Amino acid sequence: MTRLTLALDAMGGDFGPCVTVPAALQALASDSDLNLLLVGDPASINPLLAKIDSVLLSRLEIIASESVIASDAKPSQAIRASRGSSMRIALELVSAGRAQACVSAGNTGALMGLAKLLIKPLDGIERPALVSVLPHQQHGKTVVLDLGANVDCDSTMLVQFAVMGSVMAEEVLALRNPRVALLNIGEEETKGLNNIREAASRLRQISSMNYIGYLEGNDLLTGKTDVMVCDGFVGNVTLKTMEGVVRMFLLLLKSPADATGKQKQPWWLKLTGRLLQKRLAKRFGHLNPDQYNGACLLGLRGTVIKSHGAANPRAFAVAIEQAMQAVRRQLPERIAARLEAVLPKSD
Amino acid sequence: MTRLTLALDAMGGDFGPCVTVPAALQALASDSDLNLLLVGDPASINPLLAKIDSVLLSRLEIIASESVIASDAKPSQAIRASRGSSMRIALELVSAGRAQACVSAGNTGALMGLAKLLIKPLDGIERPALVSVLPHQQHGKTVVLDLGANVDCDSTMLVQFAVMGSVMAEEVLALRNPRVALLNIGEEETKGLNNIREAASRLRQISSMNYIGYLEGNDLLTGKTDVMVCDGFVGNVTLKTMEGVVRMFLLLLKSPADATGKQKQPWWLKLTGRLLQKRLAKRFGHLNPDQYNGACLLGLRGTVIKSHGAANPRAFAVAIEQAMQAVRRQLPERIAARLEAVLPKSD
Repeated sequence: MTRLTLALDAMGGDFGPCVTVPAALQALASDSDLNLLLVGDPASINPLLAKIDSVLLSRLEIIASESVIASDAKPSQAIRASRGSSMRIALELVSAGRAQACVSAGNTGALMGLAKLLIKPLDGIERPALVSVLPHQQHGKTVVLDLGANVDCDSTMLVQFAVMGSVMAEEVLALRNPRVALLNIGEEETKGLNNIREAASRLRQISSMNYIGYLEGNDLLTGKTDVMVCDGFVGNVTLKTMEGVVRMFLLLLKSPADATGKQKQPWWLKLTGRLLQKRLAKRFGHLNPDQYNGACLLGLRGTVIKSHGAANPRAFAVAIEQAMQAVRRQLPERIAARLEAVLPKSD
Repeated sequence: MTRLTLALDAMGGDFGPCVTVPAALQALASDSDLNLLLVGDPASINPLLAKIDSVLLSRLEIIASESVIASDAKPSQAIRASRGSSMRIALELVSAGRAQACVSAGNTGALMGLAKLLIKPLDGIERPALVSVLPHQQHGKTVVLDLGANVDCDSTMLVQFAVMGSVMAEEVLALRNPRVALLNIGEEETKGLNNIREAASRLRQISSMNYIGYLEGNDLLTGKTDVMVCDGFVGNVTLKTMEGVVRMFLLLLKSPADATGKQKQPWWLKLTGRLLQKRLAKRFGHLNPDQYNGACLLGLRGTVIKSHGAANPRAFAVAIEQAMQAVRRQLPERIAARLEAVLPKSD
């Protein structure tokens, strides 16, 4: 593997350095070709690095920042006041070529806006999209976008998302000719909103695209498609709904089985019960949202990964992993090449 | 209980009389105050009634229809060609006062359009909404609307949905001052689409409404609100996503536990395993979509219930149960009264 340097917004997310620093150390420990630039307040970061192996620390550099963009700040205002913030400096490290990708758990709107400003969209892309690779019940995976970068999308944007998602499925999931579907409220052609119907008719005309039609919300987990395309509002609500249900089930599976039954159980029944629950929890483990944390901001000239704001260290480490993967597979370059071939020139 | 007559579209849905007739018989058996008008093709219905107790049959009447509206028909065309169809006749029975409510598993768009035409919206309602009462993890319930009647909604419609949902929560869930939330992609005021932000500012001004703000997709099951309001596109996708995940879990819970482990298990472990799975399946049973089948088309001068097209007899019987409940609680009348008090006059 070639050496890799990533910039982490150490201050972003609900827990800041308490999550990002342990995750960074975990990532460094698991990949000796990785270097990290931790952007944040040294006074908050340094105490978390005490007693850490110096060999590991030699691949980590702290870049001081002066401020943090609040998670609930209005993106436009946050962007105007972003100079010196950990998020902005992390992105600047990418645009200056000092880091090959940036990971942040901070304000989504601000990250999207600053990334467009500093890293620039690819030729032909109106707006970058947030994309994740979600596990489905067949133990395969589905590329889903947009997950919240664009609340309002016209048909052109949906078509661009389909192209980008298709490249992602080829590169990250190693699929040839991946199936692409539009998320809709019915499978019949007449269903849904105008922008979706327009996008459908344009996707049918792209010969290099394996467009399979509309699918519904319940197909997100069935593995009927490799790429699912929707606007950012629907994508965000859908993803959160799915995660909410999955988390609830995982939680209930872990809780004691005799919570529903009132009667006392013999010890051997309790024991086998616990054994079995562990096995069930393991069976559903691949659906745990922590396992696929980190949405990629696709359509830029560089790699930017958005982590869940509430991510724990393990989940944030997964987001770092995603950044490494995107860089190593040269996602932005490959998407640029495909766009060149497929999309009409915008000038 | 007072006597009640419902009209069933016996031909609607993926399975027609094979599902609707057994469900009708089940409903008649469980409520002796119920009479049913089965609208459909007598030649398809009669064979299913052979060997049925004549006392039960005395409360059932077949009303012959000539055609069926296809599930995938374009609503506008289906409505134009609807004369003599089972769905239309069932609705006409309600508008003529021969039945107090209608239940159909047929084409949603056609049902919505025909219901508006034949049963008429309440004063002040622009478009009726599909509403369901969904179970949540606290074993309470949440009223969710719109679930797909209106793919595009302005703020006025969202406010009307909030008022109707609030009355539904009071009447069906017996809640005083139910909490009402708007489904959005973040809890901050600046988030989301314009129509949602506008609806929020108008809902805050309705003093009789317990509006609590925005909630996200993962809160559909947490019980943080009693009423969740969204447009029909988002509601439909969200509901189907949720149902997809729940069904997948229920299915996996039922499948043999040793499917993941390769090793042979002793008989006693298998036995306790099955016992435990049954218990878990029971614990999640209240989330099974069959348990809450039947969305109410709210905002009309009568009661119309839309069943899932793929409903099984048990689920279709639940939809019939919903119709009985809506009539007995006088939902349309109570919503009309509340609208009168809250909404600005449209004339």
